[in-house]
Amino acid sequence: MEKIEKYFQTLTESKEPNNLYNPIGYILTQSGKQIRPRLVMLATEIFGGDVDSSIHPAAAFEMLHNFTLIHDDIMDNAPLRRGKATVYKKWNSNIAILSGDALANMALQQLLITETSPDVILKMVDIFAKTSLRVCEGQQYDLDFETQEEVSIDEYLYMIRLKTAEMLAGCLETGAVLAQTSEKNSTLIYNLGINVGIAFQLEDDILDLYSDVTTFGKVRGGDIVSNKKTFLYLKALQLANSKQKEELKMYFSSNDFEAQEKIEHVSAIFNALHVKEETEKVIARYFEDSKLIISQLEISDEAKNRLKSLASELMIRVK
Amino acid sequence: MEKIEKYFQTLTESKEPNNLYNPIGYILTQSGKQIRPRLVMLATEIFGGDVDSSIHPAAAFEMLHNFTLIHDDIMDNAPLRRGKATVYKKWNSNIAILSGDALANMALQQLLITETSPDVILKMVDIFAKTSLRVCEGQQYDLDFETQEEVSIDEYLYMIRLKTAEMLAGCLETGAVLAQTSEKNSTLIYNLGINVGIAFQLEDDILDLYSDVTTFGKVRGGDIVSNKKTFLYLKALQLANSKQKEELKMYFSSNDFEAQEKIEHVSAIFNALHVKEETEKVIARYFEDSKLIISQLEISDEAKNRLKSLASELMIRVK
Repeated sequence: MEKIEKYFQTLTESKEPNNLYNPIGYILTQSGKQIRPRLVMLATEIFGGDVDSSIHPAAAFEMLHNFTLIHDDIMDNAPLRRGKATVYKKWNSNIAILSGDALANMALQQLLITETSPDVILKMVDIFAKTSLRVCEGQQYDLDFETQEEVSIDEYLYMIRLKTAEMLAGCLETGAVLAQTSEKNSTLIYNLGINVGIAFQLEDDILDLYSDVTTFGKVRGGDIVSNKKTFLYLKALQLANSKQKEELKMYFSSNDFEAQEKIEHVSAIFNALHVKEETEKVIARYFEDSKLIISQLEISDEAKNRLKSLASELMIRVK
Repeated sequence: MEKIEKYFQTLTESKEPNNLYNPIGYILTQSGKQIRPRLVMLATEIFGGDVDSSIHPAAAFEMLHNFTLIHDDIMDNAPLRRGKATVYKKWNSNIAILSGDALANMALQQLLITETSPDVILKMVDIFAKTSLRVCEGQQYDLDFETQEEVSIDEYLYMIRLKTAEMLAGCLETGAVLAQTSEKNSTLIYNLGINVGIAFQLEDDILDLYSDVTTFGKVRGGDIVSNKKTFLYLKALQLANSKQKEELKMYFSSNDFEAQEKIEHVSAIFNALHVKEETEKVIARYFEDSKLIISQLEISDEAKNRLKSLASELMIRVK
């Protein structure tokens, strides 16, 4: 991943206008977990492709991901990301809209300079466009759910599939396409990405409330404070008695409660209903499905083990 | 163009989420002048390509153009476009950001379904990404100029080249690539697009102040009211004596003047300095250059005449 980080440092150097390219350089060099490029490169490798040439598609997906972050942070009024000011806060929302737009195109250009055949590049562009569109759909559902009275668990799972899982699946599929593996392997690794991605987001929902504040770098319980209809909340509603349901709905329909008190009350209901454990059960099911998918892949056992440990790293992050 | 209009009517039908796809259907079916698809299809035709297969790249560029309109209208706080509420006014700015993002990807997908070889599609995608990035750069310069004290005429011409002309040039180049004409023809038609595009924008600057209100559908003098540093303004500054310069700078540094009075005073200075005629002279030079470029194209005389009349239609719209 160091190679990509170095690459990003030079990508916007001396490009003008500054107000367009400085925000792009700013976000790309705040190296996050680089999950997406890692997935592209790992898939390329396990399917016997040329890892060196995968750096451009890997960069493309990291850039696509950062484009979505820049725009999402405007929509969510988020002041901080990875402990630093978001682009729209550090500059302004017009600059954030435009630099996001530019970054999406720069991401696409990364695919075009990949050293492989035109056919393979076109397949990667196809995955890229499809993924990007689905992420938009997911983000729109997420915004819709803020004001939608009733959200079912199935609707929620579909939303996080679109918003989070499709991108991870697209990364893995891109690596498979670059390595020119079989249709069967490509489809399986895409499905693996969907499974891992959904579980990854469910784990995020748990971590928001139950992680060590210091390791995760966010304020604990932020989802509760902002009335976010996470899996924990929807599961709690499903399991709650009528008194608990009424309380939950009351807390989640107002911004007037004192944050710490609200988190304590809602957590107490969550704990009484064991929603953390219920969510972990769901994640465990996705993990089992993932192992089944991995077993069907036509790759070496060593490669299967690498995928398994990656899946568990992403799905079961903190205990 | 009817074919594209019909195509757009079905493109977002029954797609969900509604809040993502309804704004896209809304803007695509407000058929504007469809200049960009016309350019793609005309270039395809004059270079002997398959006009039927050009409908998808033509749609792609119209969609790309509309994506930029959706986002620009947020940045410019524009309430109206083509006489109807803008997407961000009719819905909200979050929906406008997202549906714009989605539309850009749908545009890209149009290129991918064009019936031609992978090589040609890749070249079109390359033009598309490059064009889109340059339009972002142009829009950023345009935003920067709002608060930049001194803007030179060269800076202004470079900005409108990026913001307006690159898209027209990209449309023509795309048609040339689809028709698989010579490198020479592709480069010439791209250069023609740049020439026509810059003149097209200069003509727009004139029309804002000097057109018949009814034929152009906007409020006359809007650029003056909003202190826009158009070619007319920059040319006037260049030609003005120190008293006129002071007056112009005073009028363009405040929003407190009564609109009609401001337009009258500024127009009086413009007229005294003959900036309309000066701008028309510049347009005439671009028109001469365009004719020279057209004469160098390796196409039939009939095709050259069609390009000439298109150029004059776009560059010299109202007398």
